[in-house]
Amino acid sequence: MREFIIVGHKAITSGEFPLNDMPGSAGRIDILARCINSAFFTSFSIRRDTRIILVLLGEPDPPKVLRFEGSELKYLNPDERSAGSLIKKALSIDARDNEQISTRGVYVRRANLKDVLGDVDITNIIYLHETGEDIRAVNLNHEHMIFILGDHLGLTKEEEALIHKTKRASLGPITLHTDHCIILVHNELDRKCLKS
Amino acid sequence: MREFIIVGHKAITSGEFPLNDMPGSAGRIDILARCINSAFFTSFSIRRDTRIILVLLGEPDPPKVLRFEGSELKYLNPDERSAGSLIKKALSIDARDNEQISTRGVYVRRANLKDVLGDVDITNIIYLHETGEDIRAVNLNHEHMIFILGDHLGLTKEEEALIHKTKRASLGPITLHTDHCIILVHNELDRKCLKS
Repeated sequence: MREFIIVGHKAITSGEFPLNDMPGSAGRIDILARCINSAFFTSFSIRRDTRIILVLLGEPDPPKVLRFEGSELKYLNPDERSAGSLIKKALSIDARDNEQISTRGVYVRRANLKDVLGDVDITNIIYLHETGEDIRAVNLNHEHMIFILGDHLGLTKEEEALIHKTKRASLGPITLHTDHCIILVHNELDRKCLKS
Repeated sequence: MREFIIVGHKAITSGEFPLNDMPGSAGRIDILARCINSAFFTSFSIRRDTRIILVLLGEPDPPKVLRFEGSELKYLNPDERSAGSLIKKALSIDARDNEQISTRGVYVRRANLKDVLGDVDITNIIYLHETGEDIRAVNLNHEHMIFILGDHLGLTKEEEALIHKTKRASLGPITLHTDHCIILVHNELDRKCLKS
């Protein structure tokens, strides 16, 4: 299992946003939509072994957590509007502490990053950060690999404090967009786990 | 200089398409829009050393070639609609054999893949293909690296015949979307060329 946790600090927490303006009035929901594409698509199929957790902290109703489960996903196409549309539907549900299903493989609940981290073995998490060890040298040989990434704003000091014991890994000499980082992590895992 | 040549076999060749339906009526223009994002964006800037050439072969007015020049680009944001909008504007121009500027850094002309290959030193081209040598073992130490990639349909036999002498490189054990491949190529070049 490969799991990606992404924090969207400005991401809108209502379904009332236009799919034509995801970067603007929706608080950079476009970033999260592209992360969904990166997490799940290969050339001919969906990565069924992958999960993405989106922590949405923007107005008007934060915090909310969306879970996209590759093993169950059905209504997802590669274009940004398709992922945006699934996010929009999930955010239109009145979020409760207990997770509710939105569309197949997409879940929503009232939760924050601390709640999300409480669900997983924090020692399995890798924080993708420029200051980390080169991912090509990192042991990725665990059956449940969890990666945490910031959005365009990175992670705050308070958020970093929640994961201060986790290992950091870097992806190369240039700081990249979150969705591009996911592609590089998948490739590294593909190379290490799928060697013929 | 890093140059990516992408063939869009079904990509519409008129500006008369809705930005809300790039995957459908526009003949998978969404793929080309995502390739533009992958080619140019790092976290905080545009890759000024990069060029992308899009060969559009769909109806109603093929062939057309768009050139996006990183050193000049101005009106580009990371979202798919932004790149789609630049493509749409360029396709609205009456294409001639001589290249015309559309928006800053974006050019259009009447040409096909053979014309494009005639512009470059074909011995510098690397064809990204599953059967190639692992890119991590390939010499990428040329000042003008050119990569050719297919869209969701790959390259046809006729197109492959035009580049039959070129080296092939593969990116890992799984076949990936064209835009994801560009991310991996950039990362490999960043690692090889920008070592501190």
